[in-house]
Amino acid sequence: MNQVVLKAGKDKRVRAGHLWIYQGEIGIIGIGVKPGEVVEVLDNRNRFLGLGYYNYSSQIAVRLLTTIRERVDEDFFRRRLQGAIRYRERVKPGASCCRLVYGEGDLLPGLVVDKFEDYLVVQFLTMGMEVHRDLILELLVELCRPKGIIERSDLSVRHLEDLPERSGCVYGENPGPLLIRDNQLQFRVDLLEGQKTGYFLDQSANRAALAPYVKGRKTLDCFCHVGSFAVHAAAYGASSVLGVDISEDAVRLAAENAELNGLQERCSFKTANAFDFLRDQSSLRERYDLIVLDPPAFTKSKQALEGAVRGYKEINLRALKLLPPGGILVTCSCSHHLHPDLFWEIIAAAAADAKRRIRLLERRTQGLDHPILVGVPETEYLKCFIFEVIQ
Amino acid sequence: MNQVVLKAGKDKRVRAGHLWIYQGEIGIIGIGVKPGEVVEVLDNRNRFLGLGYYNYSSQIAVRLLTTIRERVDEDFFRRRLQGAIRYRERVKPGASCCRLVYGEGDLLPGLVVDKFEDYLVVQFLTMGMEVHRDLILELLVELCRPKGIIERSDLSVRHLEDLPERSGCVYGENPGPLLIRDNQLQFRVDLLEGQKTGYFLDQSANRAALAPYVKGRKTLDCFCHVGSFAVHAAAYGASSVLGVDISEDAVRLAAENAELNGLQERCSFKTANAFDFLRDQSSLRERYDLIVLDPPAFTKSKQALEGAVRGYKEINLRALKLLPPGGILVTCSCSHHLHPDLFWEIIAAAAADAKRRIRLLERRTQGLDHPILVGVPETEYLKCFIFEVIQ
Repeated sequence: MNQVVLKAGKDKRVRAGHLWIYQGEIGIIGIGVKPGEVVEVLDNRNRFLGLGYYNYSSQIAVRLLTTIRERVDEDFFRRRLQGAIRYRERVKPGASCCRLVYGEGDLLPGLVVDKFEDYLVVQFLTMGMEVHRDLILELLVELCRPKGIIERSDLSVRHLEDLPERSGCVYGENPGPLLIRDNQLQFRVDLLEGQKTGYFLDQSANRAALAPYVKGRKTLDCFCHVGSFAVHAAAYGASSVLGVDISEDAVRLAAENAELNGLQERCSFKTANAFDFLRDQSSLRERYDLIVLDPPAFTKSKQALEGAVRGYKEINLRALKLLPPGGILVTCSCSHHLHPDLFWEIIAAAAADAKRRIRLLERRTQGLDHPILVGVPETEYLKCFIFEVIQ
Repeated sequence: MNQVVLKAGKDKRVRAGHLWIYQGEIGIIGIGVKPGEVVEVLDNRNRFLGLGYYNYSSQIAVRLLTTIRERVDEDFFRRRLQGAIRYRERVKPGASCCRLVYGEGDLLPGLVVDKFEDYLVVQFLTMGMEVHRDLILELLVELCRPKGIIERSDLSVRHLEDLPERSGCVYGENPGPLLIRDNQLQFRVDLLEGQKTGYFLDQSANRAALAPYVKGRKTLDCFCHVGSFAVHAAAYGASSVLGVDISEDAVRLAAENAELNGLQERCSFKTANAFDFLRDQSSLRERYDLIVLDPPAFTKSKQALEGAVRGYKEINLRALKLLPPGGILVTCSCSHHLHPDLFWEIIAAAAADAKRRIRLLERRTQGLDHPILVGVPETEYLKCFIFEVIQ
């Protein structure tokens, strides 16, 4: 097996549990290592660190698959996939939809698999996973018996790995518009044509977390997308729900999803820029009892962080001004680069500027089907904090 | 009303939502301000910041009671106490025991009130609250109609305020040994003679959080105190529970509490130093399926942090070594000075040293009856993280 030997001192991150090795950390590479090939990773004193796959095109040169000596073969991938599936059976028993494989979080870097009822959606994000594509699809059929598998490897991160974007039905049938259940509520998704893998599963438990707070409340859902928070709020007894999104398509789907659950009388949706909408509501002295802020990632890089901080500050400030004492703010950020402490500080500053005193009710993160691996901080990205306005 | 004028720039913390002003931040103090007196707090340009009580003996010179102009009178304290009581009715409906007033977290700095069934336990921690003692006791009788109020102002922090320690039954009857319910389980507490206010309520929701993880598991509860985690584990279906504490009295009470709930057959308790015990178990190659670590605060000051870090690292390392793949670690720290990020890093380092790969299941904090006030970081202190060992 080809080897990759790290420079002195560059074994620290891996020894602390991380799975990534950057190009600059490598001292020696075996001759003729092919893109995606599994290599043995050694420290500068030739001590074994693990097995991972190499790609010279990517800044992340190696992603570790294991830190013990074992064969990376069909049986290895079967065990890993079985482990991922069994973990979901433990933490989300009976869930008809969930993320079944979450890359690094399941020790399968570069692979994402979502389950939607009887269908699977797969994403191969790296060359090292791409070379095992056929095997993994076979194993998914063997272990999950899906009616169809949709590939959604149409992601720009693939270019970093020298891979083209690709999507399509790769096994069985494409269900077309599909009805899925999230916390017993129904949503219509399109696995092949929808955003990402069709529906955002990572907020599922956070949507369910609205239940104790939303009853009888006039609710505003900003950046409502296809209405998943809004529909949950209405189902849990909100007196009215207004969802706002800049995308006309999203707003149309949101209204359909409300109707699908028989909640159209308490739900309305509006196409608008959430920033402008919040400002206008403030001018109109509108008040809401509960506001959800679930914006798309304002930053996908460290560089853009400053602008993102301003964006988060602004929407949280504007939302807090619309909440009277007793009001509830459910505020999210899905940018990994925004550390939870920084997100907290942004909200604290927004509250101070809005002259609102607030207390924490819940500090939540992504669902358990997106496991956070200790030692790999990149596996954690979602923040969902729930606050109550005191005065 | 007497005034306190801050030095230039020293209004920042208060404007960001904090309630404390340190001696060194004060520029001018009105002549003859008495200890505990309510004063008007102004910035260096004489702009109103709030009303708070002053004490020249304490490093924390002023604790704010309000940031709006209002009378600090009987009605003020009644509204504050009502607000605190109603908040618990919302977040812990039907709870027979809870912290009813959590000082700064309820905008009543220096006052702690715990409810245990029909009795209250009060703590006056500051001079500014001490001067309103009679009024607050009267209001508590009016609002809660308790059978008795026990005062447990026997805390060393009182000396910082130039106050003597004091304890006793200050209204109605002292129930002596009292049966209380925590998550439908029974515990015998002594409000007057027990540790702190008799029972640790802040972990109540974290004990309940064991339920989905503990069924059929061989469980170890280190630093078990009066057995509250242990009894919960057994009640939720642990195959066996061993509780370890260095205090013989605690171990005796823990065994009584297990018996009280008819769980004595699956619970055993042992008097031992948890550090030594964990090491010995490791030598014996013992294995547990779930381990709870709920040590007393290893540090009550910033200065002692380094030793505390070593202590937390050691117990987490030893515990992780006793957990096979699939094992669960429930690990806590109640030191405010140990930041959650640092606690996380300690556990990550322990896992790396123990050669265990772990993932996060839950990142919890103190119960909602100990509200965390944004802008006052001192209101948050408890960390309770739940991890699963992957391999």
